Amino acid sequence: MVGVGMIGGSIALAAKSCGAAKSVIGIGRAAQRLEQAHRCGIIDEGFVDLAAGVRRAELVVFCTPVDRIAAGVREAAGSCQNGALITDAGSVKACIANELASGLPRGVEFVGSHPLAGSEQQGFQHADGRLFENKMCVVTPLATSSRVAVDRIAAFWEALGSKVVEMSPEAHDAALAETSHLPHLTAAALAATLSSENRPLAASGFRDTTRIASGDPDLWTAIFLGNRDSVLASLTKYDGLLAEFRRAIEHGDARRLQELLAAAKANREGNGLQ
Amino acid sequence: MVGVGMIGGSIALAAKSCGAAKSVIGIGRAAQRLEQAHRCGIIDEGFVDLAAGVRRAELVVFCTPVDRIAAGVREAAGSCQNGALITDAGSVKACIANELASGLPRGVEFVGSHPLAGSEQQGFQHADGRLFENKMCVVTPLATSSRVAVDRIAAFWEALGSKVVEMSPEAHDAALAETSHLPHLTAAALAATLSSENRPLAASGFRDTTRIASGDPDLWTAIFLGNRDSVLASLTKYDGLLAEFRRAIEHGDARRLQELLAAAKANREGNGLQ
Repeated sequence: MVGVGMIGGSIALAAKSCGAAKSVIGIGRAAQRLEQAHRCGIIDEGFVDLAAGVRRAELVVFCTPVDRIAAGVREAAGSCQNGALITDAGSVKACIANELASGLPRGVEFVGSHPLAGSEQQGFQHADGRLFENKMCVVTPLATSSRVAVDRIAAFWEALGSKVVEMSPEAHDAALAETSHLPHLTAAALAATLSSENRPLAASGFRDTTRIASGDPDLWTAIFLGNRDSVLASLTKYDGLLAEFRRAIEHGDARRLQELLAAAKANREGNGLQ
Repeated sequence: MVGVGMIGGSIALAAKSCGAAKSVIGIGRAAQRLEQAHRCGIIDEGFVDLAAGVRRAELVVFCTPVDRIAAGVREAAGSCQNGALITDAGSVKACIANELASGLPRGVEFVGSHPLAGSEQQGFQHADGRLFENKMCVVTPLATSSRVAVDRIAAFWEALGSKVVEMSPEAHDAALAETSHLPHLTAAALAATLSSENRPLAASGFRDTTRIASGDPDLWTAIFLGNRDSVLASLTKYDGLLAEFRRAIEHGDARRLQELLAAAKANREGNGLQ
């Protein structure tokens, strides 16, 4: 487990409890944090040195910010044993796939993953061994990935309780721009809009609509820049819809506004989101 | 209680349980629904005729869509007993205040209210007698309101467990445009943006960010048009912030993007919203 935060800690707990891992090695930059994670029973051993930490691993999972995954995978691959498999939990996939397109040392494979689970909370103290149960996990093979490697990664997430869907890194990024990255952007802009004098009047609607804006700014900067084109395309689509709402309000067009609101509601609920 | 839906039903339950009302008369358009609300113990009596329903009331609370409140209040006032007080629970206040500026029959007063509680759910079956506990309630006196009437309305909401703040109808509308109406608009536009093929990949972030977009389209059409100028002003402010995020992403400006995200997070959390 490279990066023992909320996601890394949750994968560690889940993998141990379902038997997908006999032992979990945590690799991180702060020895003290690793020691705490060990005392909390989240990891069995901690290493600050990546090469040393991955040496005995059968499966290496990168849970670091997306802009550090590709370089980390390449570095780790040089120290992994033959037959080791590497995956990640990052929210963007194509830039990582491109950086790793030239291949890894023989006997080591990388297959990307993105478990659609998490929260705005940070740190292993928020880890939850049941976080992945009944959640989707997108597995994004490289063009060079072997079937056996992809199947092993899919089986890992299924063991943690997730439903696995396979997509290309590019298709993943286009879809997630719309379902995850755009919502983060609109939530952050909304949170930024709030004037301090109006804060006492912000109620549950505001709270929920902006919840994800409490996510880690560094993580999300890397996600937006790692998926720039798709995020901008989704933002343009959103801007167009928001402009339609604006026009209906400007024109006092009740019928059009009602149609737009009803279509939005139906689109949301068509998703089974209640 | 004029309008026995989620809010009207919740006020009825809360007022009975805290002793603020000895008996609750429900007034609605559908006799069958009133009968159901009666059987559920939400109201003590039901009337489809407004004049007949308000005749014995000491306090009349309008929980109807905002575009029907002012006319309803005027009609009810003609049938109320001397000393009766009328309030509402609508999300916009200035247009109602303006329509009622010419005054009501002697002996009957209207003071607007907006309890900042609720959800996207509709119907008295979702009523909750503790909905108003520890919530804000904005009370918006008219220029002609007597102190005693304003104090009685404030005391009513305090009895239901709310914290009352007094504002002018205009100040309320400007503030709520930012804290409630704009979030609804951005959530609806976001819900509308989702492509059907990406629906399976929408997770908890998307769900929460668009939750309020499941609100009643008719109610919200009336709110947006009833508070048109303030909603458009808030939307313009939001558009400006969203454009700043866009520019930072377009330019690949990690430092600026990180600053914007950190400011949004801090602004949200400065509100005590976790």
